[in-house]
Amino acid sequence: MTSTLFAGIGELCTCEPTLGDGSALGLVHDAAFVAKDGRVAWVGRVSDAPATDARVDLGGRAVVPGFVDSHTHLVFAGERSAEFAARMAGEPYTGGGIMSTVAATRAATTDELRANARRLLAEMHASGTTTVEIKSGYGLDVGTERRILEIASELTSETTFLGAHVVPAEYADDRGAYVALVTGEMLAACAPFARWIDVFCETGAFNEAESRAVLRAGIAAGLMPRVHGNQLGPGPGARLAAEFGAASVDHCTYLSAEDVVALRDAGVVATLLPAAEFSTRSPYADARALINAGVTVALATDCNPGSAYVTSMPLVIALAVREYRLTPAEALLAATRGGAAALRRDDIGRLAPGFSADFAVLEAPTYVQLAYRPGSALVAQAWRCGERLTV
Amino acid sequence: MTSTLFAGIGELCTCEPTLGDGSALGLVHDAAFVAKDGRVAWVGRVSDAPATDARVDLGGRAVVPGFVDSHTHLVFAGERSAEFAARMAGEPYTGGGIMSTVAATRAATTDELRANARRLLAEMHASGTTTVEIKSGYGLDVGTERRILEIASELTSETTFLGAHVVPAEYADDRGAYVALVTGEMLAACAPFARWIDVFCETGAFNEAESRAVLRAGIAAGLMPRVHGNQLGPGPGARLAAEFGAASVDHCTYLSAEDVVALRDAGVVATLLPAAEFSTRSPYADARALINAGVTVALATDCNPGSAYVTSMPLVIALAVREYRLTPAEALLAATRGGAAALRRDDIGRLAPGFSADFAVLEAPTYVQLAYRPGSALVAQAWRCGERLTV
Repeated sequence: MTSTLFAGIGELCTCEPTLGDGSALGLVHDAAFVAKDGRVAWVGRVSDAPATDARVDLGGRAVVPGFVDSHTHLVFAGERSAEFAARMAGEPYTGGGIMSTVAATRAATTDELRANARRLLAEMHASGTTTVEIKSGYGLDVGTERRILEIASELTSETTFLGAHVVPAEYADDRGAYVALVTGEMLAACAPFARWIDVFCETGAFNEAESRAVLRAGIAAGLMPRVHGNQLGPGPGARLAAEFGAASVDHCTYLSAEDVVALRDAGVVATLLPAAEFSTRSPYADARALINAGVTVALATDCNPGSAYVTSMPLVIALAVREYRLTPAEALLAATRGGAAALRRDDIGRLAPGFSADFAVLEAPTYVQLAYRPGSALVAQAWRCGERLTV
Repeated sequence: MTSTLFAGIGELCTCEPTLGDGSALGLVHDAAFVAKDGRVAWVGRVSDAPATDARVDLGGRAVVPGFVDSHTHLVFAGERSAEFAARMAGEPYTGGGIMSTVAATRAATTDELRANARRLLAEMHASGTTTVEIKSGYGLDVGTERRILEIASELTSETTFLGAHVVPAEYADDRGAYVALVTGEMLAACAPFARWIDVFCETGAFNEAESRAVLRAGIAAGLMPRVHGNQLGPGPGARLAAEFGAASVDHCTYLSAEDVVALRDAGVVATLLPAAEFSTRSPYADARALINAGVTVALATDCNPGSAYVTSMPLVIALAVREYRLTPAEALLAATRGGAAALRRDDIGRLAPGFSADFAVLEAPTYVQLAYRPGSALVAQAWRCGERLTV
């Protein structure tokens, strides 16, 4: 296979502190790297670059690892702008609107669902995301959950079974029967298409005992655990994530000091979703407390039609800097290495030898502009495994 | 000249309440309009459309009037991402960094300044802005202020002389001499290229007496007044704007109840700049108090390299909904009709017969998605005077 030198990089953020300037971002200026067989083969100053078969000049732009968006709900039908407008006028977000998306999703054809997911994935690529996790959870019946995961598995290897998103209306009077379905027939139908098991452990969704049952069954079926928790109020989600050794607990808007310690001690990543807090006018998670305690933090979009119809990781980075008070460097790390850790991936999230050649080329001299220039289309190019994704 | 029917509009926001559903947005569904000689000649249901020479089908998308961005500082050199990062780490915004942009701007060639402004203007067009105001204020010497306004006047008819942005370092010990320069030789050199006179009336910039002198001189030179005020703290800016019958007072982060009444009574538009409040981590203006009092509100980007390096009016709309608690309809009106009012323009800001055929085609079924889908590139096409601006 040919080797390609990517040169003319004004500022390269390797996100690997053993490279470059020794900072957490591992910055290299006047940089270049070599991609071969889809992976990074060499990184350094352009003046030290080895001979390669091909060369791409990036015109002095900044380059960052492709964003790892570790929390999305990308397969659904319909939109909920009217619910959004009502919420902005003062109605609280309770998750109840999920059922309108479930109805639209069940009614949609597989082609419609696939086309909508591909449209959103194209937006993500255009804004620099090169790895995306996709959850089910808008089917809530065996056939639709399976259809969603089949589509998701066409689009990514990071697929998550979230039959336990909410209890559908038809089981409102028999929650136990729904948990039995999720942990039985639905899990059996979905597990072949999923890598992860997830549960929305929250008042109004699934309680601690139900969440425990869902995670146990998923693990028994060969899936790895992750948890939605502590979004709408304090609760047992983070604690359960620690107990089960989950890769990540996601949202973390309401964590206690004990939750933070439990996450750190269990090595669970805290995945923060500031776009959901923005679009539901919720408080923002205490990201600084997590970082100060030594918890690994990831940033993701939570892309979904209810609480965060957002595909842009640059916007998420800008919100994390403004609202979580992360430094631009901390936010970039959380959007790349942090996302990789939340997916237990050691092949993505850095531009270092051996890692996948996944990267975004910015129309900017420095990665800081991701936060400094919110709302601008700063991603000029996205590449995955050394191949161009966007034009 | 040919007439063109723009058809296949799922939702047309005319921003003219005498049209369509009678709401403030004047919504028409399954809509069409005719553009002729650069202006709107007819608006209605597609089934009632008259015969035209040409037809463009917009595929069921939503259409809104082109955004009127009535407050930008588009002509400058350099960037200030390091200052931004320091501010996000806790340093307050005082406006002092303006001088670093002044130094870079003075040192830049006219071609460099023009190319940078055109790059930003292209971003604005791509995000749906069809009218832009451009201020000087990064020269602060006669030659550079004049160069800036020459470039600005190539790009827009809405040019503003803001020699009174800050007092440059070389006049720190003789403020009076700088005010004399601004109101004398600099004004004489710049007035031929400007429509508006502006002053940054704020602690650290120009006090009330100085601001009064600047506005008086500008008006005497044939310019119309507008004011930067009440950004960093309470102050006389809004009151002065009312006294001088300014078209607009811009920022309004810190207004007293008396200021609000004065603006209403004098018919001064309050131009709110939420991207500046976002990027300086300032409090947000009390937009609801202004609207409730009957003041016309405009939204603009404040695009500048210090406090708001933002070109996207959709992001400004999303921030206004989240942080000002405007409804999506109020925010859209402020970004179109409001901007037009802030520029005293009665030919833009609405899609109604006689108005300029300036509009944005959204990759969305409804304008609400401008707030509901922050960070996404929702503007598929922008047109000005019936001509396509973006590809």
